[in-house]
Amino acid sequence: MVPHLITALNGPINELEQRILDSTPAIERWFRLEWMEHTPPFYSSVDVRNAGFKLAPVDTNLFPGGWNRLSPQMQPLAVQAAMAAIEKICPEARNLLLIPENHGDPDYLENVAQLSRIFHAAGLNVRVGSVDPEIKDVTMLTLASGEQLRLEPVVRNGGRLATRHFDPCTILLNNDLSQGAPGILEELHEQYLLPPLHAGWSVRRKSRHFQSYEEVSKRFGKMLGIDPWLVNPLFENAGEVDFASGRGMEALAQSVNTLLTRVRRKYKEYGINEKAFAVVKTDNGTGGIGVMTVHDARDLESLSERARQKMSSGKDGQTVHDIIVQEGVPTYEHVGKANAEPVVYMMDRYVVGGFYRVHGERGADENLSGPGASAVPLDYDDSARLTAPGAKGSAEAPNRFYMYGVIGRLAMLSASYELEATNPEAEAYD
Amino acid sequence: MVPHLITALNGPINELEQRILDSTPAIERWFRLEWMEHTPPFYSSVDVRNAGFKLAPVDTNLFPGGWNRLSPQMQPLAVQAAMAAIEKICPEARNLLLIPENHGDPDYLENVAQLSRIFHAAGLNVRVGSVDPEIKDVTMLTLASGEQLRLEPVVRNGGRLATRHFDPCTILLNNDLSQGAPGILEELHEQYLLPPLHAGWSVRRKSRHFQSYEEVSKRFGKMLGIDPWLVNPLFENAGEVDFASGRGMEALAQSVNTLLTRVRRKYKEYGINEKAFAVVKTDNGTGGIGVMTVHDARDLESLSERARQKMSSGKDGQTVHDIIVQEGVPTYEHVGKANAEPVVYMMDRYVVGGFYRVHGERGADENLSGPGASAVPLDYDDSARLTAPGAKGSAEAPNRFYMYGVIGRLAMLSASYELEATNPEAEAYD
Repeated sequence: MVPHLITALNGPINELEQRILDSTPAIERWFRLEWMEHTPPFYSSVDVRNAGFKLAPVDTNLFPGGWNRLSPQMQPLAVQAAMAAIEKICPEARNLLLIPENHGDPDYLENVAQLSRIFHAAGLNVRVGSVDPEIKDVTMLTLASGEQLRLEPVVRNGGRLATRHFDPCTILLNNDLSQGAPGILEELHEQYLLPPLHAGWSVRRKSRHFQSYEEVSKRFGKMLGIDPWLVNPLFENAGEVDFASGRGMEALAQSVNTLLTRVRRKYKEYGINEKAFAVVKTDNGTGGIGVMTVHDARDLESLSERARQKMSSGKDGQTVHDIIVQEGVPTYEHVGKANAEPVVYMMDRYVVGGFYRVHGERGADENLSGPGASAVPLDYDDSARLTAPGAKGSAEAPNRFYMYGVIGRLAMLSASYELEATNPEAEAYD
Repeated sequence: MVPHLITALNGPINELEQRILDSTPAIERWFRLEWMEHTPPFYSSVDVRNAGFKLAPVDTNLFPGGWNRLSPQMQPLAVQAAMAAIEKICPEARNLLLIPENHGDPDYLENVAQLSRIFHAAGLNVRVGSVDPEIKDVTMLTLASGEQLRLEPVVRNGGRLATRHFDPCTILLNNDLSQGAPGILEELHEQYLLPPLHAGWSVRRKSRHFQSYEEVSKRFGKMLGIDPWLVNPLFENAGEVDFASGRGMEALAQSVNTLLTRVRRKYKEYGINEKAFAVVKTDNGTGGIGVMTVHDARDLESLSERARQKMSSGKDGQTVHDIIVQEGVPTYEHVGKANAEPVVYMMDRYVVGGFYRVHGERGADENLSGPGASAVPLDYDDSARLTAPGAKGSAEAPNRFYMYGVIGRLAMLSASYELEATNPEAEAYD
């Protein structure tokens, strides 16, 4: 299932792989100790890029869709992790209200149905409650599988969110709140709202996340005795940019230059004979929108009208955005002939599955999300057999899935730091 | 994978199955609340018999072997549950010492190797330490797979158990202590010894376990609105019996009569047109030793010399035993043409797999353990797809594995009650 790593640069990554596999007990203990101090996000998915010479997360989603893309073999793991999560948060829970995105994309609805099944199997009565003002009555949607999905409008009963005849103890958001949290979700102090509102994309900032990730990767690198750069994508804040009017473009070009210089220095240090590139991203927002690859600051001078438009119209409809410039990590994994990147899914602190995001028409240095992308489930069958302690992962088929799970969890841990730092209800102690 | 239920009596069991499947959220919540009050055994396996008209555990093992018999697809579940268990008991743990049985049965050694792999993958350095006085040096054993298993003699350093250069924080017993706990395992107050010594078969009594199970099944039955007998095998204590001399046989015959009368009354109540039978068992001991099926108290008068010998020589070498008489639950599951019974494996509070114990030469009313038995892994593939909430389990392929997992966990919960009641270090509060 796991495609071979097609890269000429098999030195450092094989060392890194072997180091990670050899260090399983130390890595797992390190995570256990972190979870004594920090609370994992309720669920998450992380896009990982495997460049052969480095392995890094490039996007961390705290409202993961795509649960329907995981292999059926992995479902019991998700159920078990959901059981653990529920037990920790609210063991007496009976009812869970799942709040999906407002759009009715058929693939997304399959995800909603799958999440409902997971939490039902974990032992909760699940209802799907929409915050879409268009949904005014119970709405039955027919999925591609022929299954029916029942959508109900949410109602507010004083301090509580509910649907008709259904009073949940826990509310699970699968809506990333890009347009801001609707008022109906605010001040729900009597119920568990997961993830919290400040995890939504109207509040979250990628720069804050990768700042936490830098801190986490430094500590992880120290524990493992490796250069944290091997797992950390460098980044620069470029400030506010209006791609439509051109305001802020100079500062952006400067950030691209600075970042590329830092990356080239690292490439030189490791003898990596590749062309460094940068990924320009809006500081908030998700779904592959507002993402652009540049190989040189001069690329910015000759942006097409279409590219400018793409960058200035995010999911939130605004035209001016805070922009970050992130080290481009090429992906050298393939499924068939198409470029692929692993996406790792986590529930509570556990890795519960993943898939390859595959795009036949995008390059190894491009964002693989968006129209034309497909998903190939990552199975345990071949990719995560239990290796005997001390066994050498072969260059052909190491336990790559464990490695991806480690990187996914580092990003998830960073999200935990990030949410602690941005929690509006946190008490200040200093 | 799951054989059809071949039984003419498909009334009550289908009702029970449907009731259990429909009640998943209520059942899971009930377990969650139980685990707030009680600590699950570290790991366990439960033999379940599916009679069509009733479904009941007949043996609960707190030192389960056979981990190698579970499907490879289930391994990640065991690893995840092991992570949860370790995290709860001792998150700062680095080292785990696994203490196996003293015998070197090849299949058993595969189990030891598999347990080592599970706990390594869960993030611990694992060593296998023998309490066998014959093991005086590091001993390398070659498994059928060609893999090497390293066995080390345990040593005592003051209050701590160790092997050379290996000081564990946690000691995991996979030795059921039938001959009593060796002195070297006593008073290890500085380390976690799991399961505790009083879970060993030199202390445990089946009668105590099934007394707890009766209590648990009553509460479960009340919650679910079912007759607890549908999941509870009746039993009688027959006191001390010496099969060699015949002492105690009369009291045993009396117990068999009493039990069969109780069972026949239940059969009549449910219109079950079957011949009731009883299983005579030693009150301690495991592995199918000291187990005998009787259909009538008069069967005891005509016991062959061989049957007497079998009953009087348990794993512990004694000839006089406390005996219990348990309601016989026929198994109407088949793998091919052979009779089969499901064995459910649990780690901490989670069901992580199972297999069918299959015996081609034993009847549906006989113990299937012992020479000639084989194992067919229970896979999730066909047996535990996530069913949509409210979906009807078909009579052909209901989610039978979920049901077995519920019964397995009821027995596990009873073991938790049992260990609390028999804990020599428990403080008395009354």
